[in-house]
Amino acid sequence: MGRVTARRRVIRIRDGVVGARPDTLVTEEPMEIRLNGKPLAITMRTPGDDFALAAGFLVSEGVLAGADEIANIVYCAGATDDGSNTYNVVDVRLAPGVPVPDITLERNVYTTSSCGLCGKASLDAVRTTARHALSDGPAAPMRLEPALLAALPGRLREAQRVFDRTGGLHAAALFTADGELLDVREDVGRHNAVDKLVGRALQQGMLPLAGSVLLVSGRASFELAQKAVMAGIPVLAAVSAPSSLAVDLAAETGLTLVGFLRGASMNVYAGEQRIVLEQEPEQEQEPEPESEQAAATG
Amino acid sequence: MGRVTARRRVIRIRDGVVGARPDTLVTEEPMEIRLNGKPLAITMRTPGDDFALAAGFLVSEGVLAGADEIANIVYCAGATDDGSNTYNVVDVRLAPGVPVPDITLERNVYTTSSCGLCGKASLDAVRTTARHALSDGPAAPMRLEPALLAALPGRLREAQRVFDRTGGLHAAALFTADGELLDVREDVGRHNAVDKLVGRALQQGMLPLAGSVLLVSGRASFELAQKAVMAGIPVLAAVSAPSSLAVDLAAETGLTLVGFLRGASMNVYAGEQRIVLEQEPEQEQEPEPESEQAAATG
Repeated sequence: MGRVTARRRVIRIRDGVVGARPDTLVTEEPMEIRLNGKPLAITMRTPGDDFALAAGFLVSEGVLAGADEIANIVYCAGATDDGSNTYNVVDVRLAPGVPVPDITLERNVYTTSSCGLCGKASLDAVRTTARHALSDGPAAPMRLEPALLAALPGRLREAQRVFDRTGGLHAAALFTADGELLDVREDVGRHNAVDKLVGRALQQGMLPLAGSVLLVSGRASFELAQKAVMAGIPVLAAVSAPSSLAVDLAAETGLTLVGFLRGASMNVYAGEQRIVLEQEPEQEQEPEPESEQAAATG
Repeated sequence: MGRVTARRRVIRIRDGVVGARPDTLVTEEPMEIRLNGKPLAITMRTPGDDFALAAGFLVSEGVLAGADEIANIVYCAGATDDGSNTYNVVDVRLAPGVPVPDITLERNVYTTSSCGLCGKASLDAVRTTARHALSDGPAAPMRLEPALLAALPGRLREAQRVFDRTGGLHAAALFTADGELLDVREDVGRHNAVDKLVGRALQQGMLPLAGSVLLVSGRASFELAQKAVMAGIPVLAAVSAPSSLAVDLAAETGLTLVGFLRGASMNVYAGEQRIVLEQEPEQEQEPEPESEQAAATG
């Protein structure tokens, strides 16, 4: 179960005080579910209980109703070029005599068509190719004050029309580098709220969204980080936690990723060059004064 | 934008006091996205901004990078047997000369294979066929005290191992009708947490989960309600809001659906026969005494 969480360096800002420390993130990795060897679905999941996840998915899809319908469940080895096991491809083999339903024909299931390539259940498989470079825009380089970021969630809440009535909507908002609200969209699905925001911007000829900030009301998953990158948005800020894979994608693409944006506090997980830090991030738990003195005189 | 929210009757329990009133829920409906007429994906979304949603989805998938690549976006009419327009199927037609990428071959996209049937983007398309009847189990009929339900979120939190460290995990827990915790699973995706729970139960020969209660740490979407039904779980309780489609599915299948389970308060959206209500639910905002008298003497 060591893969349930991952450690990443994070810059913490608390009321203007900046510190750096390792942070514990929830792990997010793609898992491909196969039925009798045939790829059926890819889900972004936290590793652990993978066989149960595959079995439960097939219960939800109406394929399985009892344990006796399963012959066995295995990890698909040789999923990578070097033949190693990623533990991200799970094959459920049905017991002899159990019919293999063609559920992709019966109803709409989230399927993958990248059949045959075990290694597809990797970061490459779920990643799209950026068509815009992340750009800081005309006022480059982008330098955001933490106080400006801290003010954004309040502006998002003011602009939300439906949330307070139902408590069931996720929101996504687009801001300029000056903190001006450009647009806000809501949806029962957080990915839809971002797609609506990006689609509106595309329709208005605003893509790529250079120099803008995307704020989401919930967590920052890999999927949302990827949507920001695809739209050319250089800064993604989330009110809640990011996943490990969102942080990895941000670090790799140059996206600035801010999480736990609450009050005057926030964590910067990647792309810190776009955030004005009043002091260089230092390792918290600074050395004792004696040690400092010892170092100075040593 | 009238379809963004929906009204449903709800039974409110506040510190033991029971009342009934109409409640505003966020609307959830399936939308099929087509590219040049070819079905590409179905997403569960809140109606509104549908063209922007389709365009933004295609930006995220790397198909679109600018508005000039779109010829037009239309609703697909004739999506139902009677030829009416459900406004749940959107076709994005690319401008002449823009290549139509076979993105299902290039990478894993959530696709539908139910091509050609416009009407598939309906409740039928996303619904699986139950293989277990919802059963109250050996102690039928199931009669849950609100106080018992109110105690469940605390037991879930106690049992969560990772949530407090990362803030990034959803949890799902299974309880007996006596409130005993059977299992708890966590995942970065709420649907995965439920699949893991159900998959474990299947592996242990516990399906269908008659007489059990499923508690989820977040909202109750259509997808989660469907997973409960497929596993034969008669009661779904959520800490946050349900969607309109989750309530509709619950009412149709006989699932008991409880939302906003917080402290001694909760809302019962469907299947109230499994909840012990100390008084019959009455319409709140009762008639004025004068009116009552007038009615009695009239």
